[in-house]
Amino acid sequence: MKKFVLAFAFSLVLAASAQAQSAKTAIDQANRNWITAFNKGDAAGIAQLYTEQATIFPPGAPMAKGRAAIQKFWQGAIEGGIKNAALQTLNIEQHGRLAREIGRFSLEVPDADKKLVRIEGKYVVIWKKVGPGWMLDIDIWNADK
Amino acid sequence: MKKFVLAFAFSLVLAASAQAQSAKTAIDQANRNWITAFNKGDAAGIAQLYTEQATIFPPGAPMAKGRAAIQKFWQGAIEGGIKNAALQTLNIEQHGRLAREIGRFSLEVPDADKKLVRIEGKYVVIWKKVGPGWMLDIDIWNADK
Repeated sequence: MKKFVLAFAFSLVLAASAQAQSAKTAIDQANRNWITAFNKGDAAGIAQLYTEQATIFPPGAPMAKGRAAIQKFWQGAIEGGIKNAALQTLNIEQHGRLAREIGRFSLEVPDADKKLVRIEGKYVVIWKKVGPGWMLDIDIWNADK
Repeated sequence: MKKFVLAFAFSLVLAASAQAQSAKTAIDQANRNWITAFNKGDAAGIAQLYTEQATIFPPGAPMAKGRAAIQKFWQGAIEGGIKNAALQTLNIEQHGRLAREIGRFSLEVPDADKKLVRIEGKYVVIWKKVGPGWMLDIDIWNADK
């Protein structure tokens, strides 16, 4: 009986670890898709990576809820000349069908002379498992300076 | 058997609802404690509301990890003359021992002439259940303008 309990507990640990691994792999891929869409100017493609009820919390602007509002926000950022976005995940913690990611970002914003200025900052994303994949549900960020 | 399954399912729904209610009640109280501590200038009291490994993500500053760094950050905000902080929870979603809160904040910051200027913004907090209570584990915010 003791052996069985230990084997069962071990299999739970393995299952939890495999689940966390699969969340991380899926989130890494979704982040790569986000960056690819942004850097080719595809705001509709970005919006599809969010849940239908997702909310973004952009610095210097009100929160925007739902894919249409999220697409409009990123379309504005793309048309404003923001370029070369990059993301670096620092940590992912999974709780069932939810995961929270913390990370760092960089992007380039045109100044008054249209010269690109590099901005660095940090973000928190809450991901939700929707069907087989993971989608951004809450997305908030701010700059370091 | 069918009746038993229904009764069991119903009791699970009740239990989940009671659990969510208790998280919300505890988080509301912790937010009131946060505001009380801030508005009396008690940075150590604020820090005690965070988990030991908590991280804050302040706009215009690097992230700060751990209670000592968090206390130092809020001490700086208090010494910088920030006053009259207020929080308004918009929504709490609980997943086991984790809950994510979204909300709005306001505070007053002195300008160059030491006149207080009201700033409004939004925040995301990830709370963790630690012992019987809930503590801030991730805290990120930014201004609307």
